Amino acid sequence: MTLKSQYPSNVVALAGGVGGARLVDGLDRVLPPGSLTVIVNTGDDFRHWGLHISPDLDTIMYTLAGLAPETRGWGIEGDTFRVLEEAKRRGEPDWFLLGDRDLVTHLMRSAGLSEARSLTEITRGLCAALGVSRRVLPMSDAPRPTIIVTQRGDEIAFQDWLIKEHAVPAVREVRQEGSDRATDLVLDAMESADLVVICPSNPYVSIDPILALHGVSDRIRQTTTVAVSPIVNRKAVKGPLARMIKDIEGRAPSAEAVAMHYEGLLDGFAVHHGDGFQAPFPVLETSILISSKEERSTLARELIDFARTIS
Amino acid sequence: MTLKSQYPSNVVALAGGVGGARLVDGLDRVLPPGSLTVIVNTGDDFRHWGLHISPDLDTIMYTLAGLAPETRGWGIEGDTFRVLEEAKRRGEPDWFLLGDRDLVTHLMRSAGLSEARSLTEITRGLCAALGVSRRVLPMSDAPRPTIIVTQRGDEIAFQDWLIKEHAVPAVREVRQEGSDRATDLVLDAMESADLVVICPSNPYVSIDPILALHGVSDRIRQTTTVAVSPIVNRKAVKGPLARMIKDIEGRAPSAEAVAMHYEGLLDGFAVHHGDGFQAPFPVLETSILISSKEERSTLARELIDFARTIS
Repeated sequence: MTLKSQYPSNVVALAGGVGGARLVDGLDRVLPPGSLTVIVNTGDDFRHWGLHISPDLDTIMYTLAGLAPETRGWGIEGDTFRVLEEAKRRGEPDWFLLGDRDLVTHLMRSAGLSEARSLTEITRGLCAALGVSRRVLPMSDAPRPTIIVTQRGDEIAFQDWLIKEHAVPAVREVRQEGSDRATDLVLDAMESADLVVICPSNPYVSIDPILALHGVSDRIRQTTTVAVSPIVNRKAVKGPLARMIKDIEGRAPSAEAVAMHYEGLLDGFAVHHGDGFQAPFPVLETSILISSKEERSTLARELIDFARTIS
Repeated sequence: MTLKSQYPSNVVALAGGVGGARLVDGLDRVLPPGSLTVIVNTGDDFRHWGLHISPDLDTIMYTLAGLAPETRGWGIEGDTFRVLEEAKRRGEPDWFLLGDRDLVTHLMRSAGLSEARSLTEITRGLCAALGVSRRVLPMSDAPRPTIIVTQRGDEIAFQDWLIKEHAVPAVREVRQEGSDRATDLVLDAMESADLVVICPSNPYVSIDPILALHGVSDRIRQTTTVAVSPIVNRKAVKGPLARMIKDIEGRAPSAEAVAMHYEGLLDGFAVHHGDGFQAPFPVLETSILISSKEERSTLARELIDFARTIS
């Protein structure tokens, strides 16, 4: 599908953690109101201190609210840790760093879930309270935990592998448990999208869980879809992705390896300067390092221009 | 039953809020290790921000841990309110003042309950983490909410009446909902008690809920039982008790009115200087104002001596 107007009218971004949040932030700065829907991975969701924590939803919300730290990949800038310090004093597990302001998000989400409200509805309320007007949709209202299967054959919940095990055990495969049902809002958003952006998130643990939901990949194949590489110069910008590509694919990490992973879904791919490769679709070489807000907007604009050239 | 040794070997204190906690603190300072069990009202328990809050258990635990404020009747001395401030900023209900350190108690209790652990077992863990070695038992592991029936005929949960309605609506009666089952540990403790102390807590909302559990009053009738008046000089030391005596009994608040309320259960009653009255059991006139730790110990010692004189 060719984008006719200057801006696509319905952009759907698939996003996970920090890299995804930063590109979403760029899209937010560039796209007109009402034209962006963010579909967020919930495979990382877990319970801690009896609370339901949705790390990717939080990162996206805090980033869009202007509350995310510039450097640290989690929580709220300038947050304090009074509750965590007390929990530690009492011998409670403190491996997951929960700030005091951050904690309100988990409290309200957990309270809502205990009242049988949907994660979608709760997320809408949390966004409104944080002043986030963009449409942020959890990929699913049902539990859909991501499981790391290690090369030793152990099965470990993703957060445990990432934080408790420091991402050390080699990964054989990543799989999802639970229902593969996307929410109706997610399926509707994908149906009416004229551009899908796969954000520079970890394909295995942030994007695949969304793609694996029933009906999502089919819709992506029918829509102009561009992705941004989470690998720059053979290294992951953040997190354990480089390691996972080596472990799972048995090959060196590269932008091309990511593109091959998304085989059949992409109409275009944006990589960093010097990371270009021969592909059956256009490859945009540009700067995809997006720490600053300026860089985020620039990449978002380039990406939309790039998508307009793709038919 | 006459107490033979210098100290009774199994004292059971029935307690609710601040007044109860202070006498319990005195008993803790005076009685040898292993000889005090505190049975605590859970009729005030409620949910807030999705958390299970047990105000009376918390007051008792914090007082025994030396964490309770000297003047304020709730929470932890010197606590901060970062989480509450953030919740308020996001438009969440902030009528119940939850401190950051205090919050850890509610989080851990709620997490335990969501894992199907009993309130008794959870309380043991909370006490251990706070360095409280005395046996603190919730009266029940089952929900047993106290309901205020107003003279207009409305039924209001106790915390809503007390805090949201500022204890303004006149009370017709107080009743309990849910199961009247005490825990086995509570019944065992009462069975082996050689002295029961009814603390200077509100009879209607702190003590009656314990007395109303199946088997508790029967055991009290078989054991030496002394109470301390929560009324001093016709005023409640704290809280809405004076109002409730007027509303419910249709008479002026007095220590005697409280004693009459406990009719048939008492073997002795301690009142403040000048509050004495003719009764079918000994009445001890002394100072029952126990703000300071010194005063708490003194009253506890007097009370035990008083109980030893009762046969």
